[in-house]
Amino acid sequence: MAKTVYVINGPNLNLLGVRQPEVYGRATLADVEKLCRARAKRHGLEVDFFQSNSESAIIDKLHEARAKKAFAVVINPAGYSYYSVAVLDAVIACEIPTFEVHISNIHAREPLRQHSLISAAARAVIAGYGIEGYGLAIDGAAALLATDTKTKR
Amino acid sequence: MAKTVYVINGPNLNLLGVRQPEVYGRATLADVEKLCRARAKRHGLEVDFFQSNSESAIIDKLHEARAKKAFAVVINPAGYSYYSVAVLDAVIACEIPTFEVHISNIHAREPLRQHSLISAAARAVIAGYGIEGYGLAIDGAAALLATDTKTKR
Amino acid sequence: MAKTVYVINGPNLNLLGVRQPEVYGRATLADVEKLCRARAKRHGLEVDFFQSNSESAIIDKLHEARAKKAFAVVINPAGYSYYSVAVLDAVIACEIPTFEVHISNIHAREPLRQHSLISAAARAVIAGYGIEGYGLAIDGAAALLATDTKTKR
Amino acid sequence: MAKTVYVINGPNLNLLGVRQPEVYGRATLADVEKLCRARAKRHGLEVDFFQSNSESAIIDKLHEARAKKAFAVVINPAGYSYYSVAVLDAVIACEIPTFEVHISNIHAREPLRQHSLISAAARAVIAGYGIEGYGLAIDGAAALLATDTKTKR
Amino acid sequence: MAKTVYVINGPNLNLLGVRQPEVYGRATLADVEKLCRARAKRHGLEVDFFQSNSESAIIDKLHEARAKKAFAVVINPAGYSYYSVAVLDAVIACEIPTFEVHISNIHAREPLRQHSLISAAARAVIAGYGIEGYGLAIDGAAALLATDTKTKR
Amino acid sequence: MAKTVYVINGPNLNLLGVRQPEVYGRATLADVEKLCRARAKRHGLEVDFFQSNSESAIIDKLHEARAKKAFAVVINPAGYSYYSVAVLDAVIACEIPTFEVHISNIHAREPLRQHSLISAAARAVIAGYGIEGYGLAIDGAAALLATDTKTKR
Amino acid sequence: MAKTVYVINGPNLNLLGVRQPEVYGRATLADVEKLCRARAKRHGLEVDFFQSNSESAIIDKLHEARAKKAFAVVINPAGYSYYSVAVLDAVIACEIPTFEVHISNIHAREPLRQHSLISAAARAVIAGYGIEGYGLAIDGAAALLATDTKTKR
Amino acid sequence: MAKTVYVINGPNLNLLGVRQPEVYGRATLADVEKLCRARAKRHGLEVDFFQSNSESAIIDKLHEARAKKAFAVVINPAGYSYYSVAVLDAVIACEIPTFEVHISNIHAREPLRQHSLISAAARAVIAGYGIEGYGLAIDGAAALLATDTKTKR
Amino acid sequence: MAKTVYVINGPNLNLLGVRQPEVYGRATLADVEKLCRARAKRHGLEVDFFQSNSESAIIDKLHEARAKKAFAVVINPAGYSYYSVAVLDAVIACEIPTFEVHISNIHAREPLRQHSLISAAARAVIAGYGIEGYGLAIDGAAALLATDTKTKR
Amino acid sequence: MAKTVYVINGPNLNLLGVRQPEVYGRATLADVEKLCRARAKRHGLEVDFFQSNSESAIIDKLHEARAKKAFAVVINPAGYSYYSVAVLDAVIACEIPTFEVHISNIHAREPLRQHSLISAAARAVIAGYGIEGYGLAIDGAAALLATDTKTKR
Amino acid sequence: MAKTVYVINGPNLNLLGVRQPEVYGRATLADVEKLCRARAKRHGLEVDFFQSNSESAIIDKLHEARAKKAFAVVINPAGYSYYSVAVLDAVIACEIPTFEVHISNIHAREPLRQHSLISAAARAVIAGYGIEGYGLAIDGAAALLATDTKTKR
Amino acid sequence: MAKTVYVINGPNLNLLGVRQPEVYGRATLADVEKLCRARAKRHGLEVDFFQSNSESAIIDKLHEARAKKAFAVVINPAGYSYYSVAVLDAVIACEIPTFEVHISNIHAREPLRQHSLISAAARAVIAGYGIEGYGLAIDGAAALLATDTKTKR
Repeated sequence: MAKTVYVINGPNLNLLGVRQPEVYGRATLADVEKLCRARAKRHGLEVDFFQSNSESAIIDKLHEARAKKAFAVVINPAGYSYYSVAVLDAVIACEIPTFEVHISNIHAREPLRQHSLISAAARAVIAGYGIEGYGLAIDGAAALLATDTKTKR
Repeated sequence: MAKTVYVINGPNLNLLGVRQPEVYGRATLADVEKLCRARAKRHGLEVDFFQSNSESAIIDKLHEARAKKAFAVVINPAGYSYYSVAVLDAVIACEIPTFEVHISNIHAREPLRQHSLISAAARAVIAGYGIEGYGLAIDGAAALLATDTKTKR
Repeated sequence: MAKTVYVINGPNLNLLGVRQPEVYGRATLADVEKLCRARAKRHGLEVDFFQSNSESAIIDKLHEARAKKAFAVVINPAGYSYYSVAVLDAVIACEIPTFEVHISNIHAREPLRQHSLISAAARAVIAGYGIEGYGLAIDGAAALLATDTKTKR
Repeated sequence: MAKTVYVINGPNLNLLGVRQPEVYGRATLADVEKLCRARAKRHGLEVDFFQSNSESAIIDKLHEARAKKAFAVVINPAGYSYYSVAVLDAVIACEIPTFEVHISNIHAREPLRQHSLISAAARAVIAGYGIEGYGLAIDGAAALLATDTKTKR
Repeated sequence: MAKTVYVINGPNLNLLGVRQPEVYGRATLADVEKLCRARAKRHGLEVDFFQSNSESAIIDKLHEARAKKAFAVVINPAGYSYYSVAVLDAVIACEIPTFEVHISNIHAREPLRQHSLISAAARAVIAGYGIEGYGLAIDGAAALLATDTKTKR
Repeated sequence: MAKTVYVINGPNLNLLGVRQPEVYGRATLADVEKLCRARAKRHGLEVDFFQSNSESAIIDKLHEARAKKAFAVVINPAGYSYYSVAVLDAVIACEIPTFEVHISNIHAREPLRQHSLISAAARAVIAGYGIEGYGLAIDGAAALLATDTKTKR
Repeated sequence: MAKTVYVINGPNLNLLGVRQPEVYGRATLADVEKLCRARAKRHGLEVDFFQSNSESAIIDKLHEARAKKAFAVVINPAGYSYYSVAVLDAVIACEIPTFEVHISNIHAREPLRQHSLISAAARAVIAGYGIEGYGLAIDGAAALLATDTKTKR
Repeated sequence: MAKTVYVINGPNLNLLGVRQPEVYGRATLADVEKLCRARAKRHGLEVDFFQSNSESAIIDKLHEARAKKAFAVVINPAGYSYYSVAVLDAVIACEIPTFEVHISNIHAREPLRQHSLISAAARAVIAGYGIEGYGLAIDGAAALLATDTKTKR
Repeated sequence: MAKTVYVINGPNLNLLGVRQPEVYGRATLADVEKLCRARAKRHGLEVDFFQSNSESAIIDKLHEARAKKAFAVVINPAGYSYYSVAVLDAVIACEIPTFEVHISNIHAREPLRQHSLISAAARAVIAGYGIEGYGLAIDGAAALLATDTKTKR
Repeated sequence: MAKTVYVINGPNLNLLGVRQPEVYGRATLADVEKLCRARAKRHGLEVDFFQSNSESAIIDKLHEARAKKAFAVVINPAGYSYYSVAVLDAVIACEIPTFEVHISNIHAREPLRQHSLISAAARAVIAGYGIEGYGLAIDGAAALLATDTKTKR
Repeated sequence: MAKTVYVINGPNLNLLGVRQPEVYGRATLADVEKLCRARAKRHGLEVDFFQSNSESAIIDKLHEARAKKAFAVVINPAGYSYYSVAVLDAVIACEIPTFEVHISNIHAREPLRQHSLISAAARAVIAGYGIEGYGLAIDGAAALLATDTKTKR
Repeated sequence: MAKTVYVINGPNLNLLGVRQPEVYGRATLADVEKLCRARAKRHGLEVDFFQSNSESAIIDKLHEARAKKAFAVVINPAGYSYYSVAVLDAVIACEIPTFEVHISNIHAREPLRQHSLISAAARAVIAGYGIEGYGLAIDGAAALLATDTKTKR
């Protein structure tokens, strides 16, 4: 039976492709989902794709990933990146390798957005590749967890 | 004629795979080079692979990338990430899309290493995927520059 | 058809007038609603009045304001003012002129409450006029959006 | 005999409407005065309208408001907002309810301008409504001082 | 009729005893509940035991404690301790003596977790006694509220 | 032979119950001692009760607790909490489980008193229960050391 | 010919004794002047007593003290204490021993007022003695300048 | 019977006049004592003069001042000024008006010495008058406590 | 008709050459004026030379420079450099290229003086050339405004 | 024999006029050299013109200036301005009057670039005059060193 | 007559070799004393060896070193290193060359321990050589004071 | 075959004894080398003595020490101490016990120089003994590595 990658999207990502398309492009969250499913398929993985504006729904989803022994979590915590210790604790508690993705290069944005709290518990972080970042995160998770070369945290 | 990706490695990376193999794994910088060439080939790209402990040699290489109209720069600035405004300025001056890679997840390390100055000028940043991060950076550069979807910086 | 002002109230405002009446006065949230409807009527506007203790419900309401092409948003983010980047992002994403109200003069309170994150995305801010602040915010929104004099942000 | 609202304007506001009209609009300080007089009239109030580039002249005017038992002070401290403890002390010493106005939304500007010292002694603060903010401040002062609902400072 | 202690548990505490048992022990939240009921009984008190990952559900529960005139609130705000001004405001608004519990000694952990915002509104704080901390908090609440010796806040 | 709990009180606690009784209550240090002895007796423990204004006397007492293989140390470091690295080092050096008590809820006081240095070496911390906090600390020590559930520090 | 002590008072001190007499007492600035003249007389000194709300008038007066070779300057810079580098420079430039007085104990007030910039150039500082502080400053100046014991600055 | 002023001197003041006489002058602590006794006599006061290098001895002396209902405390906390919360608490606990003296103008020295913690609990502070500062403090205490004009703290 | 350079000097500069000549040299402000007129003449420019200790007089002068369409402003804001947002705003408002001069190298002085607020609105800054700095500023203004090479701000 | 001015240029300045000409203008480093030689000639000085991307080459050049007893050093440290204590130490060690130049007004740029470490050892600093700044620096050095008026550092 | 080196040890060092021998080694303070005496003998020096947990006893010992005209002081201030301005002042006051020793490399430990206040008054500092550091300090003192080469402080 | 101590000297140390001899003494780097060779000889060690102004040359030398299995590294990183993460990483990577030396007592110098980054990876640190510090470092390395008593890092 195929293993599952949980792809979890945080608040306001439901508006992707709708708001400010001249800035964020016209790709929608549905496009992100399609991209994830296609990319996961290449690695023989299934995708559980999820978006919520609710912090607790995201926490619950991370707990589900734990319960269902997910292969990996790919998470774009969006606004929760910068303050949600509750989501951080859920990432720690879920004990599944977690890969953080940001569509924009947050490290080059205003000070408020330069450091994600969630990164402290992530296995790896990708920022600035647009929606392609999700694809890279899935590729990377597959590669990393296959060999599980002991990279230094 | 094939376009070239400049892969630039900063100080101490010449010891990769040699020092503390139980921590960093046994992959050497030669392995990184092989991985980069293979991955670039998939996208019809050539690789100019470079490592130096010298800040000015890295600056010169970035100037060369500009002069040679490189397709992209993939850079692991290593220790220079955290203070070298000179390297940051060279990345800005080279005017080639630059993709930053860190082998470890620097955002989860000690405060000194949590934020790279170079990221302010990078198109995108990858950290924590081990040497596979170089492969992802090349894949991502190829994908991003092909479509060049206007993602928000 | 009349345009609508969304009046969105954050956490704990459901207790207005009930808790510590000697401090906050005896006006309840129902009184705030009445005041808003009366004032909006003067300007030929309708009111969609909303309160929630839930961050995601507030984000959803802001998305609804976008979808329904609201005339303006008047928001008292209460406790979420000081940390919710998710609500801030929702205000940015809703792309409707947003007017922030605080019942007390937050700028004169303890350091924790002196600066609202949400203000970075608000068109204007009113603090310290008690519940009358909502009325002023509606008046101001009507005046500002009528002439839309280009004031410097 | 009609009560008087002191409207006090700080440094550089004499250039309103003249400098950068594409940014601040074409309304001049004379327009602000007219707006204040009209709005005060609605509430049966007179206006003592004042502008000075001089910190001490502003302090003297605040002392005069005290001596003349003004109904309220509406003040736009402009540049003095951010450092003048002397003006802050004058606001405290004048013991007249003081309402602070800023034409732009200072809370969304550069860090230097995000917090006004004067707010610590103001009854209420309005920022970002353009010159209409003066009108709202007079309306709000009239409403607040009429009922003087005990809002929490 | 017996008075009620509200025992409110924050995010991720539903996983207690399940995740990392070698670290947190094998006691589950059900065990915490049992411990609380037994301890409350000694003091002739009933327990309303609650856990939620949702910030707003916790706020609602605090409002219920107010409405039901609870004897005391014992709260382990978990991740919300460190940023939720909304929960802090709910503790202030509920006007019931509130006792804060942390299973681990948060004061000895990483800087992010050394100070709980909620403590500013708590009557007392216990940290580091494991799940026994809940029992001590109930004992202490009973003792303190019986005599209500005027300790200095 | 009964095991002994060392109860160590820092500077100015000799004035307990004497100074500002309307604030601290009328319980004296003698009452604290009586409370500790009674509570320890319940657990079959003896008490070595000590107060000193002298930093070195407190350090010496902690060394004695080590030498005498005390069951536990209960310490209210009072003013030394906030700066005495020497007392902190003595707590570390004594290698006896140490439980910190504060009569008031220090976490809700002025910034100077919000974080105790000593907590970094304490097993657990109690603040805000008045003198009952000593009783709870002894109860908690007995419970914790009996089962010694491995709670996360 | 008698030497002269310049007594210079900063902004808002003209309201002394008038505003909040329950706080500042009923002594007026005229009383301060009388006190200074009487005290100076004891030491065979004359007084040039001055108050202004104007920063530049205070600077000019300090320049006058220089030009007139004053015996000493006693200055209460009031609100200018906390930010006026211009007044600080005037104290340095006047090259007359300057004694700083504050009516209240500024070191015990809010952070904004705990440190006076002017003190860096003052010979000595007195705070908290009410208007008697002026008398002590004159006594101290007389004593100090008589013997001019070389105290360490 | 004459009332007593406690004059309390902190660490290293026993070397006054002996060390670096070119800097601190040749006045010794015995001279300070003589000066204090003479000055107190003028006001019909006795002096209990005390110096100790020991923090706890200073705390004990402050407790004694409380027990003996001293007229006032004049304290030069020397090195303890900058960190001893224990001495600060003793000043608060002694409930006798306390007047702080520093021989040098500490506010003009290195950052470490610019703010004394003890000042938060002192009635008034004098710095920079050399040993004459003790005399002024006694004069000031006598004057202040005679009239006890309610100056704003 | 010749264009005019406004040379504006801030507080205490009237004492130049008089105070501490061993430090600042014996050149007076009259010498500065002479130097400016001579240098301006070389470029066919006139000079409006101005000094004031008054912040508002300086603001007024900057407004005059605007009204008179000055060729350039050369300003030594002296003490106002470090806090006067009012002067900063006047420089912004005057919309004339402004060149900042400091006689000493402020960047090498104490932290308080290392960064001038005014520089944020200046076209260029010169510090440390003594009074010759005024001459260089005029030369530079003439050169820069002649060619107006687009240098990066 | 003519004295020599060392003109030393830091990293990335070799790209001047080539990169972003719309921003930095079309003047190249060769133009800077020509400008320097012409200007130096006016003062009977020779120029040793140097650019390097290498920190150690710049240090070596500063040592050479010392060995050759240069008349003055004009240095644009570019990116090294903000972190290179090694270059700062070389400027101190070379014991030749050093004049710092920046093409742009660094004081008005992002916080990272607002203060140059090198300035602490420079005689004077010029920023914002474009390449003309080099000319002014040479003029200024000639004037300053001729008269060597003792300006206050 | 032989000159004497005072070797002064701060709090908790009496437990050396006893506590955590697996960490600190089995060398006791008696071993340190023996090592010091042997090493001093090589240089014809005697040793006055002292340990105390008391801050004032250490201050008194430093005063004794002054009175006895000690050759040098070797001090390990242990916990007092990080806050005791009183010990710092005693080192300054004793006017004997003082050499600071730390057994561990404090500069590599937690932030709290990275900088010793005492170092500001020490001639030299050694950290991380274990108890051999005392021997090196004595050797170094002998060498340094023999030649007293003027090293830069 | 004799083991080798690498003695590595950072930027500007080539000028030792030449620049400011009244400050640094007349000992040159050649004298340091002689001292090191003599001292190493006592312990049967050879010396590889190296100085460079180049960061990368120092990194290369540290790599060589690794490759050659050096007995120990003695390093004076000079200016690189305060910012070079690249040199810090090279010290970590070389995996040879490293001993840091500073000629002056850097801990007593300006804030910029009070803490060396390199110390985090050094076994031990010596500062303030002049060039004798090199001798002590070699003695200490020999002693420490002989017994390798497990001192606490």
